[in-house]
Amino acid sequence: MVKENEVLASLEWRVNMPSGSLRILAPEESRQTCRFISKLQSLVMGIVLNIREFFEKAWTLAVNEPKKVVHCLKVGLALSLVSVFYYMRPLYDGFGGNAMWAVMTVVVVFEYTVGSTLYKCVNRAIGTCLAGSLGLGVHWVASQSGDRVEPFILQASVFLLAAAATFSRFIPTIKARFDYGAMIFILTFSLVSVSGYRVDKLVELAHERVSTIAIGASICILITVILSPVWAGTELHHLISTNLEKLADSLEGYAAENFRVDGSTNVHQKDSSMKLQGYKCVLNSKAAEESMANFARWEPAHGKFNFRHPWKQYLKIGASMRSCAYCIETLHGGLNSNTETPEFLKKPLNDVCMRLSTSSSKVLKELSSMIKTMKNSTKLDILVDEMNSSVEGLQNTLKTFPSCQHIPTPDPATEEAPGGTEEASLKPTALSLMEIVQMATLTSLLVEIASRIEAIVEEVKELATQAEFRDESSKKSKQTQTNPIGNDGNEHEVTMTTLQKV
Amino acid sequence: MVKENEVLASLEWRVNMPSGSLRILAPEESRQTCRFISKLQSLVMGIVLNIREFFEKAWTLAVNEPKKVVHCLKVGLALSLVSVFYYMRPLYDGFGGNAMWAVMTVVVVFEYTVGSTLYKCVNRAIGTCLAGSLGLGVHWVASQSGDRVEPFILQASVFLLAAAATFSRFIPTIKARFDYGAMIFILTFSLVSVSGYRVDKLVELAHERVSTIAIGASICILITVILSPVWAGTELHHLISTNLEKLADSLEGYAAENFRVDGSTNVHQKDSSMKLQGYKCVLNSKAAEESMANFARWEPAHGKFNFRHPWKQYLKIGASMRSCAYCIETLHGGLNSNTETPEFLKKPLNDVCMRLSTSSSKVLKELSSMIKTMKNSTKLDILVDEMNSSVEGLQNTLKTFPSCQHIPTPDPATEEAPGGTEEASLKPTALSLMEIVQMATLTSLLVEIASRIEAIVEEVKELATQAEFRDESSKKSKQTQTNPIGNDGNEHEVTMTTLQKV
Repeated sequence: MVKENEVLASLEWRVNMPSGSLRILAPEESRQTCRFISKLQSLVMGIVLNIREFFEKAWTLAVNEPKKVVHCLKVGLALSLVSVFYYMRPLYDGFGGNAMWAVMTVVVVFEYTVGSTLYKCVNRAIGTCLAGSLGLGVHWVASQSGDRVEPFILQASVFLLAAAATFSRFIPTIKARFDYGAMIFILTFSLVSVSGYRVDKLVELAHERVSTIAIGASICILITVILSPVWAGTELHHLISTNLEKLADSLEGYAAENFRVDGSTNVHQKDSSMKLQGYKCVLNSKAAEESMANFARWEPAHGKFNFRHPWKQYLKIGASMRSCAYCIETLHGGLNSNTETPEFLKKPLNDVCMRLSTSSSKVLKELSSMIKTMKNSTKLDILVDEMNSSVEGLQNTLKTFPSCQHIPTPDPATEEAPGGTEEASLKPTALSLMEIVQMATLTSLLVEIASRIEAIVEEVKELATQAEFRDESSKKSKQTQTNPIGNDGNEHEVTMTTLQKV
Repeated sequence: MVKENEVLASLEWRVNMPSGSLRILAPEESRQTCRFISKLQSLVMGIVLNIREFFEKAWTLAVNEPKKVVHCLKVGLALSLVSVFYYMRPLYDGFGGNAMWAVMTVVVVFEYTVGSTLYKCVNRAIGTCLAGSLGLGVHWVASQSGDRVEPFILQASVFLLAAAATFSRFIPTIKARFDYGAMIFILTFSLVSVSGYRVDKLVELAHERVSTIAIGASICILITVILSPVWAGTELHHLISTNLEKLADSLEGYAAENFRVDGSTNVHQKDSSMKLQGYKCVLNSKAAEESMANFARWEPAHGKFNFRHPWKQYLKIGASMRSCAYCIETLHGGLNSNTETPEFLKKPLNDVCMRLSTSSSKVLKELSSMIKTMKNSTKLDILVDEMNSSVEGLQNTLKTFPSCQHIPTPDPATEEAPGGTEEASLKPTALSLMEIVQMATLTSLLVEIASRIEAIVEEVKELATQAEFRDESSKKSKQTQTNPIGNDGNEHEVTMTTLQKV
């Protein structure tokens, strides 16, 4: 390697310039430096670009969700407030080094939503008190039993209780409500029983610790509740209602894409493809829903929600929405068959399919607005009836439709009516199943989606009963009177317009 | 209320006994006591029952997942070991009250899998060091700028850095890798910059804290790695391979339930319904997969896995599996139509459907065993070809099959051959679409499932390339030689038996 370098160093690159002069190129060494510098440059550039990208991402996040920025400021405020306790002499003399616990409590306990902050505060309080008193008890027992046995009793108690508390964290019911509490229990118990061996004034210490933790926790709760609170319950409520709307949009988008009558495509292309993908949000929101419902339980009454608002019911609605979204996913992904459905079948079926998907998405939108406003909807039953009659309509069309193509005679008038009424002039030819498969799948998926939407309707109605949704105001019923809607499911336009007004 | 009670107290209940004697019943007061006692009894019984149920649940969990029990014992052991540091005089003199940090580190950092423990340890270390040095720096700057300005500088730095670090926790890339580190950063920085105002020997304190944390963390890592380690990577690997098998089972179970030839139903009923529900596990395992893949990145080489094992690829496999599971869910839930498919269509289609679903589930099982053994499969391509030829077979059947029913003449011999070959003796009657819809949906869903399985195959092959799966051993190839398998996709029985041997 060294030899090679020497050889390279003794080489010279000469280039004949167009002017006839001879130019000697720089030797290998300085070129290596050049290369090194250019590499370094590109590395630095890469890092700078990465950092820039990172900050751009952060900026987008901040602009899109200003609530999160507010949360960050709230955390800063809480910490500043807590550290004031440190700076003020009298407080410092009172709490001493234990004021650290107040800082720690704020950092660990302050969460994005009120519910999760409360969950952590309550858990920390329960865990600390329980473990503290148990630790004192064990410590007393140990101290009564002589210097020799004491460490063994303490060690054994730490081992057993830590193992038991850790195991309890695996049990689903405990995990959902007291996971953090169990951890704090282990922590406090170990600290108390271990430090108790050294410190005599254990009770005093415990008192100090509890009061500093209380200060930290109450600062957190005050700030999180008073300064633009983010309620887990409200977020869940909003998520479910938005997801219902997204489902409706992707159903509607699908219909517009596949059953549209030419000329009516005034929807923006990009907008429509965004809408089409809405069902994916529904598919992926299980974990978020569950954690929000978990935290919402800890929240006091706020806004339109009581303390015992049926948050669990939202999970049921979420589950039935997901089951509907599975079908929509199959619908979206699964129909890229390369066999075209014959035109004579397509047209009339397109109409009924369009009607069904429109009425289905209308039901979903009504459910969404019903949840959003927390008012019983007078139109819901009508819309569901309409959806069911669309299903029936589709099924009737399927029933009456023969699967034979009637090859038309040259007379063009008969081309428009393939229903089999003019059999004399047409020659029936059996279609292969292959030609029907796509349309058949489409229709049966739409019917299935409608039936799953009915399941969502049931769950939402159950929510309305449990949460005691108000009836719609008189203003709304007035509007309904001016647009008389029957119950036979044929007033698409009227309900459509009233829906849009909502 | 009092009056009523008085009246009740003055009443006496007399019962004529069969022996002719008269029995005076106890007055209201004592009956109230009785009622109270019985209420109390039922309450206590309820609590006892609840507790019993809880312990039964815990016991089932412990029996089903002994690994979790071992984890609990490991936590107990780690805490006992750490508290030994407290009990030994020389160590106590060395570390003083800071030994508390060792206990805290163990409690907070010890997690179920090695990966998550390492994640927390590394994050804690990075967070503490970064915040500690930054805190010292800020503290030095503040102390240089005079007594008046000092608290303001400290407060402002706490506010700003806490807000910034909290915001960074919302950015997905940071959240996935350094969420815990950011929290520890906030905690340490606040503690250092706040306590620095009081304590002079800050560097010494930091040194002590870091060394105690190091002791706690290393005890955790040692115990979690040495004593029956639970690797997040292995768990993820296992989960993916099990889920593939579950998908295969629920497809197979569906086929057995719906296309079975009578007489071959020797599958246990309960077992089969358990298998059928397997796809639900796949639908719900997204969160688990993601967190495991996240933690697996932190793990060193272990077992069959390198340090840079392509864990992200598992997530891709998981996503394509879920997309397949959506279809299977639709298949399971969506075909409860009340219109029966006519028998003459059902029989031949049942056969091809059965073949397709069997070959699909065989592909899935092969993928599962391929992942499990981490060996390239020689049979995979054959099985995929087989599946594709089954798809083609199904499509061909659909293409050749006319959708007209030929009403048979009294001659019973023609009943068996509805293929349209004996048209002379049959009168074609068009079926309505309604009668075909169910079968058509079924077939197109099966075809869609097959195409999604192909997507899974691609992802698994990518994994095999990235993770450098070994080729199958010579022993296997010997076996293949004795069972000559061609590549034309017709050797169902041969591949079936070799598969069962695997």
